Amino acid sequence: MSNNTTYRSHTCGELRLADKGKEVTLCGWVQRSRDLGGLTFIDLRDRYGITQLTFNMDTNPDLCGEARKLGREYVVQAVGTVIERSSKNSKIPTGDIEIDVKSLKVLNESKNPPFTIEDQSDGGDDLRMRYRYLDIRRNPVRQNLQLRHRMAMLVRNYLSNLDFLEIETPMLIRSTPEGARDFVVPSRMNPGEFYALPQSPQQYKQLLMIAGMDRYFQIVRCFRDEDLRADRQPEFTQIDCEMSFATQEDVLSTFEGMARHLFREVKGIETGDFPRMTWHDAMRLYGSDKPDTRFGMAFVEITDMAQGHNFGVFDNAQLVVGFNATGCAGYTRKQLDELTDFVKRPQVGAAGLVYIKYNADGTLKSSIDKFFTPDDLKAIADRFEAKPGDLMLVLCGPAMRTRTQLSALRLEMGSRLGLRNPDVFSPLWVVDFPLLEWDDETQRYYAMHHPFTSPKPDDRHLIADRDKWGDIRADAYDMVINGVEVGGGSIRIFDRTLQKEMFTMLGFSDDDAYRQFGFLMDAFTYGAPPHAGIAFGFDRLCSLFGGADSIRDFIAFPKNNSGRDVMSGSPAPISQQQLDELAISVRNDAKN
Amino acid sequence: MSNNTTYRSHTCGELRLADKGKEVTLCGWVQRSRDLGGLTFIDLRDRYGITQLTFNMDTNPDLCGEARKLGREYVVQAVGTVIERSSKNSKIPTGDIEIDVKSLKVLNESKNPPFTIEDQSDGGDDLRMRYRYLDIRRNPVRQNLQLRHRMAMLVRNYLSNLDFLEIETPMLIRSTPEGARDFVVPSRMNPGEFYALPQSPQQYKQLLMIAGMDRYFQIVRCFRDEDLRADRQPEFTQIDCEMSFATQEDVLSTFEGMARHLFREVKGIETGDFPRMTWHDAMRLYGSDKPDTRFGMAFVEITDMAQGHNFGVFDNAQLVVGFNATGCAGYTRKQLDELTDFVKRPQVGAAGLVYIKYNADGTLKSSIDKFFTPDDLKAIADRFEAKPGDLMLVLCGPAMRTRTQLSALRLEMGSRLGLRNPDVFSPLWVVDFPLLEWDDETQRYYAMHHPFTSPKPDDRHLIADRDKWGDIRADAYDMVINGVEVGGGSIRIFDRTLQKEMFTMLGFSDDDAYRQFGFLMDAFTYGAPPHAGIAFGFDRLCSLFGGADSIRDFIAFPKNNSGRDVMSGSPAPISQQQLDELAISVRNDAKN
Repeated sequence: MSNNTTYRSHTCGELRLADKGKEVTLCGWVQRSRDLGGLTFIDLRDRYGITQLTFNMDTNPDLCGEARKLGREYVVQAVGTVIERSSKNSKIPTGDIEIDVKSLKVLNESKNPPFTIEDQSDGGDDLRMRYRYLDIRRNPVRQNLQLRHRMAMLVRNYLSNLDFLEIETPMLIRSTPEGARDFVVPSRMNPGEFYALPQSPQQYKQLLMIAGMDRYFQIVRCFRDEDLRADRQPEFTQIDCEMSFATQEDVLSTFEGMARHLFREVKGIETGDFPRMTWHDAMRLYGSDKPDTRFGMAFVEITDMAQGHNFGVFDNAQLVVGFNATGCAGYTRKQLDELTDFVKRPQVGAAGLVYIKYNADGTLKSSIDKFFTPDDLKAIADRFEAKPGDLMLVLCGPAMRTRTQLSALRLEMGSRLGLRNPDVFSPLWVVDFPLLEWDDETQRYYAMHHPFTSPKPDDRHLIADRDKWGDIRADAYDMVINGVEVGGGSIRIFDRTLQKEMFTMLGFSDDDAYRQFGFLMDAFTYGAPPHAGIAFGFDRLCSLFGGADSIRDFIAFPKNNSGRDVMSGSPAPISQQQLDELAISVRNDAKN
Repeated sequence: MSNNTTYRSHTCGELRLADKGKEVTLCGWVQRSRDLGGLTFIDLRDRYGITQLTFNMDTNPDLCGEARKLGREYVVQAVGTVIERSSKNSKIPTGDIEIDVKSLKVLNESKNPPFTIEDQSDGGDDLRMRYRYLDIRRNPVRQNLQLRHRMAMLVRNYLSNLDFLEIETPMLIRSTPEGARDFVVPSRMNPGEFYALPQSPQQYKQLLMIAGMDRYFQIVRCFRDEDLRADRQPEFTQIDCEMSFATQEDVLSTFEGMARHLFREVKGIETGDFPRMTWHDAMRLYGSDKPDTRFGMAFVEITDMAQGHNFGVFDNAQLVVGFNATGCAGYTRKQLDELTDFVKRPQVGAAGLVYIKYNADGTLKSSIDKFFTPDDLKAIADRFEAKPGDLMLVLCGPAMRTRTQLSALRLEMGSRLGLRNPDVFSPLWVVDFPLLEWDDETQRYYAMHHPFTSPKPDDRHLIADRDKWGDIRADAYDMVINGVEVGGGSIRIFDRTLQKEMFTMLGFSDDDAYRQFGFLMDAFTYGAPPHAGIAFGFDRLCSLFGGADSIRDFIAFPKNNSGRDVMSGSPAPISQQQLDELAISVRNDAKN
């Protein structure tokens, strides 16, 4: 192959009946070959599709013989004529034609791949990750990466058209102990000193607002050295945004617009206005700050009706709460036991489950019949707005913990009832998050969002009263779709005094705060504009639009749960010379 | 300020005479204020422009008094009516109108900035870097970042329209000792092991070709732990691209198209076809693999005519070479001495400079009159195609070193003659680079481009002859604009046997090669397609289009020559707890 010819005239996805009679050159991989008596057919695959090559043993036995020797995944170049197929394949866009091949060239051979390159592969996860470059040849993975590209382009063009500027912020930054653990990078030129990789460009985007850039975005890699739960990656991608002179309404409408644009362009769906729900309502009605609103089963509190019936479990509980599972009165003992087992699993942690069946005949049957009269139960059923045929499921205990447990049960019921269809999208905004969360272990408050989030102006007076700190609401908001928090942000503090009060509430001394955030606090003294922002988890957003649960299949080269790339074998030991140049040592107990 | 109102109705850049009479609300920074008797004028600035606010001491003394108290860079919100200016300012788009202010609110105060926020600032480099967030408020820096955003959008849309997919490759990868020094990242979860930050996504983009992705690009951060020369950054951004089933012609025409698109959209310039020059010709004619072709002064070799005249310096030289500086025969002794001093500087390193003046009267005068007759000089002048009024400048010595020295002199003359206008663009392709470079110090060959670059098919037979390795040409190409290498790439080796031969030439044992590149070499055995690629230095491309010499002003938050960010104070020591968790120690001699 000289480098000055052209490799191909068309891709494997573009030829149609209208091209009949054309002389073409195609390149691609051998997907499969079939010998049918005197004819050999080869499915030639590239990123764009599959085209069938035909070889005739009668008219060109040499060439047909060559074709029969091609193995799976061989890379070949075929020259031939587009002809109409006698038996058409309506499943693929090129299914009306085939190529009557005149000449064939093997560009590269292939060993037999360790798993089948098909939509449903026979390869397990580990094997496919080890040979990720073969896994990506499979349609589903390739389509995920194409979707990701398309979504990134849509986001960039949407925001750019709204005067947002994409500005690249540094990857080698200063380590800040607040928040999750940083990955660090030893500096050879400054021995004993380290850069950190950004967990987000938070401080830089705020500096860009102080710098007058007005509207910023960036699709940017971020890093977090956390113990990896399933489906967390040490490096992940954010759509990071910030606006100056922006109210919460400005941010919400801008980014609701972005999400609606994506739904329209990618899924062909018009979502309408996103509902808004306060954090307090989300917790009260769904037991979660990221409620899956594709289905109902909102919570109903019955503490007042449940107590005073000599049922100690209820009487001693802070909260008695449940939801109505429409049409589930027919659940068998076995099914109810499964649900009880579900809530008693350590991951959920409830002590038990109370059910009230509203039978089709109008009678009520419950696991607490001993303590409640039929009239008592009927009154409870009325509060649940239950109808004959429904099933009420009730938990009790400390308020927040019980809500969280009931949320898990609600999602389980949603799944069992097929109400969590990945092709249905139910977005909403959750707003008015608490500013602070108390941590029992360290006996201090932490910022629920981050230390630069503004309290709601109406709640600012509560800062003066230490006992009320937990009640302060923040101007913070999350975009939630199908029970997944896809994005979150806040109005930022742009006033130095308020920022100092915030650091005080977080238990930072002035010195601590200044050591960590001094340059940002200095910047606030030079005319910081009011500003606000939001960040979206791009990997997660892609997986949601792709209808998949795992983000891993939307990342070209993901890492496993130990942070390893099993394909390249990273991380790995480095040479003594590298360590010496960096003036660091690996502790003896860590050497392997 | 409640968070539910709107901060502004317009930006400071959009109001025109057609808006006369409108009630508007603007937000921005106080650029400057002037008190003229009964009137106070304030220039209010945001990213989009400047609008003049007017306050009248007669009609509203309180408000005017407030306005007079505003300091530079205060952030204010002003409500008022658009009125026609009595004395218009044609220099700014909003110069026909001003705002008759009805109410004014200070959103934030500002300390007096440490330097003036003007196009020409009084702040030195260090001060501006320390307060980069104020520096970015200045028009020139802001415009650079806007240009960068625009160029990134143009590149992405151009490539995406050509079916290139932007695919994010990992930032935490495996360290490979070949090439420049890696930044490394200790892995907490895998003690004693390290990730490296990518110097480029080279291996991943080749894997994506093996994965069948066909056309890939990425605007991507890359990292190189090198001692920083002026205008090098430890992190930099590349437009990284790769194509399958692509010939050199395919790559060159695709990316010449991209560059022409940028010239057209950004500069309004039609560049026409880019000339192509072999590396050999570039060195012979310009002494550089990145010739500045905005001007002529191509080299003329006169070794044959220069030798045999008893001038030892010429007689002992491998090469005698010069160029003709049109119209410079009038150069004074002082000017010629300056040029001699220039070539004798250690950075250039020539022993001396020979000149031949072709005077306007047709006589010839040179620094070597003792050895050459007027007829000899006339013959030399003819070879230079010199005319009366011209000046020939000649160097001699070892061939390659002399060419490099003469290249420096040529660029100096180009600058002196004003031939290096940043508004003129002269792009070209330099092709057919040598495959290997010999390194005297380590006594081995290095890949001139990288170890995956293919030799030209016509030169592959030379691999068999060790003495000919230096003559092997590569299918490698650089895009050069105005003497700057903006991009470079190559046809890749896609054949495992050839790749092994390449590693052998580079002095790698099979084991070494496999240890470093094993997973890539394995991947080549599973049907690697022919592929080729290119990468552009995006920071440099932006600075070139912005007409500036320094890339630093096209990076929002650059680092200085010690790799430090003086604004945030990074890098910095990290806590003992962080070191402990990573199982590393800082050597005692490095602690500070």
